[in-house]
Amino acid sequence: VKKKDYSFSNRGKTLEDEINDANEYYLTHGIAVIYKKPIPIQVVKVDYPSRSSAVIKEAYYRTASTTDFNGVYEGKYIDFEAKETENRTAFPLKNVHLHQVEHMRKVVKQHGICFLLVRFSAINRYFYLPFEHLGLFWDRMQTGGRKSIALSEFEEHAIEISPKYAPRIDYLEIVKNLSV
Amino acid sequence: VKKKDYSFSNRGKTLEDEINDANEYYLTHGIAVIYKKPIPIQVVKVDYPSRSSAVIKEAYYRTASTTDFNGVYEGKYIDFEAKETENRTAFPLKNVHLHQVEHMRKVVKQHGICFLLVRFSAINRYFYLPFEHLGLFWDRMQTGGRKSIALSEFEEHAIEISPKYAPRIDYLEIVKNLSV
Ligand SMILES: [Mg+2]
Ligand SMILES: [Mg+2]
Repeated sequence: VKKKDYSFSNRGKTLEDEINDANEYYLTHGIAVIYKKPIPIQVVKVDYPSRSSAVIKEAYYRTASTTDFNGVYEGKYIDFEAKETENRTAFPLKNVHLHQVEHMRKVVKQHGICFLLVRFSAINRYFYLPFEHLGLFWDRMQTGGRKSIALSEFEEHAIEISPKYAPRIDYLEIVKNLSV
Repeated sequence: VKKKDYSFSNRGKTLEDEINDANEYYLTHGIAVIYKKPIPIQVVKVDYPSRSSAVIKEAYYRTASTTDFNGVYEGKYIDFEAKETENRTAFPLKNVHLHQVEHMRKVVKQHGICFLLVRFSAINRYFYLPFEHLGLFWDRMQTGGRKSIALSEFEEHAIEISPKYAPRIDYLEIVKNLSV
């Protein structure tokens, strides 16, 4: 029996879509409760054309001060940031913001499970990088080192996620394996 | 020495402000990482007056499908909804939405720490109601019973929070005491 290859079936979905699909799967199967946080928006002007409805007429995107996703899995706090890159050989750290790294440091201090989920879209590979490693690569950049994480460094320090049928990107399997 | 009474020093702050203050205290003191989630907004129209700036010109508030606050405290997932009422004798359950109750049920199944934080603003009293009880009062309403939770029921089933100096509304002290 030939093993089915799911690696090319993301059908043009963004990584965020894929993670939302996984979270939906986890939620409906009672496995975990993990959501994407709403994008923070600063509302400046609101019209009330009728009593029950409000139309926002002027608002601005604010920079996120935390990460994309958080929630609970078997009592444990899960917190992560998802990023995709078209780069084939490295993940540029400019995709991550300082305040996100600072947030993740605090989460790890509180013994939360914290990681970066990266998709190298051009080569269709997914990696789960525990925050501990991201923090070290970040510090390397801050002290004058390279401004990216090489694919080979992902291969060494991260855990690769092999797409499967359902959920396609089963990142909680990594969490489960890391905690036993 | 007379014990100072902090009960009337909220200075017109909303309950949300008070909780944000507590969360800020927890964050800066390394006690916990808990945030208010951004309000979910559906963006319909965006203008780009310049390359770097985006102005949202039409958007709508969406109903929150989860709770107000979540985060991590000593590895544990914390998730709660905060509500204030001017009612002096009962908390009307219309302040809570069905999808929020459903979300909280799922969180409790995942062994998250989940509760309702209620301020009776007119009498300046604060209660921490574990979700388990909220769920029962909700079910009572769904099966034709009263549509509110009496203050006396809070006195019996909830834990009262006595405001103190810093943080004023120290709800994590309740979490700590409940988990030992
Ligand atoms: Mg992201
Ligand atoms: Mg609320």
